Amino acid sequence: MDRIYATYLIETAYPLEQAAEIMAGEQSAGTFVRVPGETDELRQQHGAHVERITELGAVSAPSLPGSRLPKGVDNLVYRRAEVVLSFPLANVGLSLPQLMTTVAGNLFELAPFSGLRLLDVVVPQVFATANPGPQFGIEGTRRLSGVEGRPLIGTIIKPSVGLTPAQTASLVKTLCEAGLDFIKDDELIADPPYSPLSERVAAVMSVINNHAEKTGKKVMYAFNISGDIDAMLRNHDAVLNAGGTCVMVNTISVGLAGLLYLRKYSQLPIHGHRNGWGALTRSPALGFDYRAYQKFLRLAGCDQIHVNGLRNKFCETDESVIASARECLEPTPDGKTAIPVFSSGQWAGQAPDTYHALGSVDLIYLAGGGIMAHPGGPAAGVTSLRQGWEAAIQDVPLDVYAQDHLALRQAIEKYGAL
Amino acid sequence: MDRIYATYLIETAYPLEQAAEIMAGEQSAGTFVRVPGETDELRQQHGAHVERITELGAVSAPSLPGSRLPKGVDNLVYRRAEVVLSFPLANVGLSLPQLMTTVAGNLFELAPFSGLRLLDVVVPQVFATANPGPQFGIEGTRRLSGVEGRPLIGTIIKPSVGLTPAQTASLVKTLCEAGLDFIKDDELIADPPYSPLSERVAAVMSVINNHAEKTGKKVMYAFNISGDIDAMLRNHDAVLNAGGTCVMVNTISVGLAGLLYLRKYSQLPIHGHRNGWGALTRSPALGFDYRAYQKFLRLAGCDQIHVNGLRNKFCETDESVIASARECLEPTPDGKTAIPVFSSGQWAGQAPDTYHALGSVDLIYLAGGGIMAHPGGPAAGVTSLRQGWEAAIQDVPLDVYAQDHLALRQAIEKYGAL
Repeated sequence: MDRIYATYLIETAYPLEQAAEIMAGEQSAGTFVRVPGETDELRQQHGAHVERITELGAVSAPSLPGSRLPKGVDNLVYRRAEVVLSFPLANVGLSLPQLMTTVAGNLFELAPFSGLRLLDVVVPQVFATANPGPQFGIEGTRRLSGVEGRPLIGTIIKPSVGLTPAQTASLVKTLCEAGLDFIKDDELIADPPYSPLSERVAAVMSVINNHAEKTGKKVMYAFNISGDIDAMLRNHDAVLNAGGTCVMVNTISVGLAGLLYLRKYSQLPIHGHRNGWGALTRSPALGFDYRAYQKFLRLAGCDQIHVNGLRNKFCETDESVIASARECLEPTPDGKTAIPVFSSGQWAGQAPDTYHALGSVDLIYLAGGGIMAHPGGPAAGVTSLRQGWEAAIQDVPLDVYAQDHLALRQAIEKYGAL
Repeated sequence: MDRIYATYLIETAYPLEQAAEIMAGEQSAGTFVRVPGETDELRQQHGAHVERITELGAVSAPSLPGSRLPKGVDNLVYRRAEVVLSFPLANVGLSLPQLMTTVAGNLFELAPFSGLRLLDVVVPQVFATANPGPQFGIEGTRRLSGVEGRPLIGTIIKPSVGLTPAQTASLVKTLCEAGLDFIKDDELIADPPYSPLSERVAAVMSVINNHAEKTGKKVMYAFNISGDIDAMLRNHDAVLNAGGTCVMVNTISVGLAGLLYLRKYSQLPIHGHRNGWGALTRSPALGFDYRAYQKFLRLAGCDQIHVNGLRNKFCETDESVIASARECLEPTPDGKTAIPVFSSGQWAGQAPDTYHALGSVDLIYLAGGGIMAHPGGPAAGVTSLRQGWEAAIQDVPLDVYAQDHLALRQAIEKYGAL
């Protein structure tokens, strides 16, 4: 029988075996107190199993409030463990929202736990096949942007909010001329009254199409079409009809059902932003590792997935960023990958470490100040990023490569203490 | 100009004014480092404002990892404060997903903060009016269930998973005959192969319709139609066509766009489950208060909203449960309310405290063991719950009321140490 495997970090004052059984029971059939109708056959066919428990040590104080103690315990130790549960696929069916409800539902609130975090989830191939997954992925993104053998170099329109369509288009002209491969809306701008998406699409695509006619290079622009379903479909069509090559979705705000619906409709790659992700991950004993969460986004059909960047301005560690990016490049059981999107405080300086940690150039590398504030101007900024990646791929130290590459040298002088 | 107001709990080693300005800048226009194109006019029209900062004291250690310190600070104090920001409605437009992206997006990950939690959000009337909100609410739920002047008494089908449609229908027959007003699927069962929703609807509604014909009482059954959009619409129609009066959605798994789409389509009340809510709320310095989160569910159109229950088996405090329930009963700016759903470890014993704290009988009161494990059987279990609420409404102590109400007396003997 096909099963779903979910790996958790738990922290509990209960005996670990008992705690794991409580999780399994709460999220399937087979609570400690049997209810009428809970036959042996039902438990056999529908119960979650505790597959493995790996003790990780103990802490003296609970990480989260609200947990309760087992009866008769006075020697208070909160143990941590990695626990693998398996669930019968039959409980979930092939529904992605129900997968989330099953592996990441009520259990975060269970009183025996002072910590509970979903680290990973592995689905059987039949489940992966039944869900759409990325339609374009790495290959499609490369084909539509015409970039091979290196990362796509990109940027985000700033200011985040407030630019009119004409102002946005004017900035896009500068960015196209600077040699960027990829440009995206900020997550904060979707379809507001001061910049209706249809007008922004018309203005921006006019610039991008003109640039493509002149140079042969079609810059990929991720228009933020996030909204209700009707708005997303209408705005997808506006992008498609204007010759655009990418749409962007604020995945956590829109949710899995909306993302799935768009994916089935879409003729364009979906750029998946993860706005609000911090709320789900920043407490170390609660929520999700991105290793687990990005799988939901990928199964739903995101082609491009945000992973933050090395030495970013947010709170995420470099280890977590790289683990997330590697996971995006790991094929789903039906062979689909997504392209990770690096951003936040990026310039050429992180290219070598990113390349060595990831072992791949299949990524989108977004920079803001690293391009716009470059002493030689935006074109030199883009050049410095490409040079940084050339050095990384050729395994030449940045400062050595910079000796005969001016844009990189200027970037190092401006941004880096190597 | 219309503005959106959002209240946060923050914790930071930065000066509070500076920290609040960083939040405001990150989520609108106006970062500390100006970018080209960020004119005074743009900042004036699109910048978020810091409306109020109320200092709440200090802690010696950061609540969350990953925060960074302001330059030149060596006297490490992490201050807490309640901060109110306002955002121009024009930044968001009338999109509910974009509201979430704006007030609860990237800011949870900002490095200056060792804690950041959204406590409340207030939208202008034009925003509330543009979003559907509850279609049925309290009145519609009462009209369809035929229950007035007291809470709806309900239960959840258990075992959570594994029952066939015929087994479910058989249990529903028992529950109808016991006098229940409301029955719901567990969140773990939606449309699985062992109990396809269309078959479960047919089997269950046959029982409910027969019972209604015989007794005049149409029990409200919340069928869990959670899934992708096509499945939800198809299953909504199955419920509607069989004479059902309620559909249930796992709101966090399905997401806002899916919920909005269903709401606009639905001819039935939407029962909003909050599976996975613990991940968003259980770390006190991170995520959301339900006061804020339930507003998204309500604006999207949930008629019935889960709030946990007093003295529940999960980690939530009674104060939080009551605050959540009160908020559901508070009309949106366009006058719409939802009916709060109490559950988890409920029996007659919590009725007086629930009534006194809430000051209302507009709620759904779900019990499991409090009904099925009652010494007099399920019918006596339901009677004991009604008697508990009668006592609460009449302001008679439970033990006094129990003197001439057998079912309540038995319940107290079984479940309560009053």
